[in-house]
Amino acid sequence: MEENFELVTIGIVRKEEEKTWIEIFKEYEKALLKLDEFSHIITLWWVTGRDTEEDRKNLQSHPKVSGKVKDAPLCGVFATRSPARPNPIGLTTVKILSITKNRIYIDKTDAFDNTPIIDIKPYIPKSDCIMNVTIPDFFDILRERREE
Amino acid sequence: MEENFELVTIGIVRKEEEKTWIEIFKEYEKALLKLDEFSHIITLWWVTGRDTEEDRKNLQSHPKVSGKVKDAPLCGVFATRSPARPNPIGLTTVKILSITKNRIYIDKTDAFDNTPIIDIKPYIPKSDCIMNVTIPDFFDILRERREE
Repeated sequence: MEENFELVTIGIVRKEEEKTWIEIFKEYEKALLKLDEFSHIITLWWVTGRDTEEDRKNLQSHPKVSGKVKDAPLCGVFATRSPARPNPIGLTTVKILSITKNRIYIDKTDAFDNTPIIDIKPYIPKSDCIMNVTIPDFFDILRERREE
Repeated sequence: MEENFELVTIGIVRKEEEKTWIEIFKEYEKALLKLDEFSHIITLWWVTGRDTEEDRKNLQSHPKVSGKVKDAPLCGVFATRSPARPNPIGLTTVKILSITKNRIYIDKTDAFDNTPIIDIKPYIPKSDCIMNVTIPDFFDILRERREE
């Protein structure tokens, strides 16, 4: 079911030498007020490379599990973080290093250089940090929490 | 900057009597395989009620902090979870109670009945559960983590 949901790009990911930042477009710079008081943000981005008819029809895949790999069974894409999914939206929580004008310098992101950013939300423990989580055995190396 | 980013609705929120569930459209039911092995999902939804020209131009607001309220200062919307933002995308992490065919029964969500769902992602501690988070003093009641 297609809808008239119109997305605007609010900025782009930039990677240059050792630095990674989100370049917020000037017209949205005011929306960054007070963001420097948060340590982490949730970034939503458009996975342009996977915005293809074929990738968006993908409903099942074998998730990639890095490190000590167990055989991952076939999963529905809503049970994976695969970028090949009906709406190719990437979600990555990143650490803010500093904010200078319209640039949010961050530690790292899996989004490529020039990726369109569609939203930035502050990471709020009460809603986003869940302590008693169950995930499948084949994802067991992803069970540990991020200590950073 | 408007782009041709085309979103599809993959399901809707349903609330009826005491029950809350996400009704995934039949054509996406296959994408739920193995999701029942996760305890929590991140839901992305379209805040239809805030998809107005005025709300999408909103760049700054005073965040609502429930409970013991301190005066919250004016913040950029990217430093708040306000639904009035350039792209009215809601993000809520919810607990799965059970999955039956194309219905994901959940504990609760702040999305209204009939809200369009645009993505479902499994909650993975290694990427989503961050332990050392700083948030501003005026959000201090939101610092505690979710023990559920």
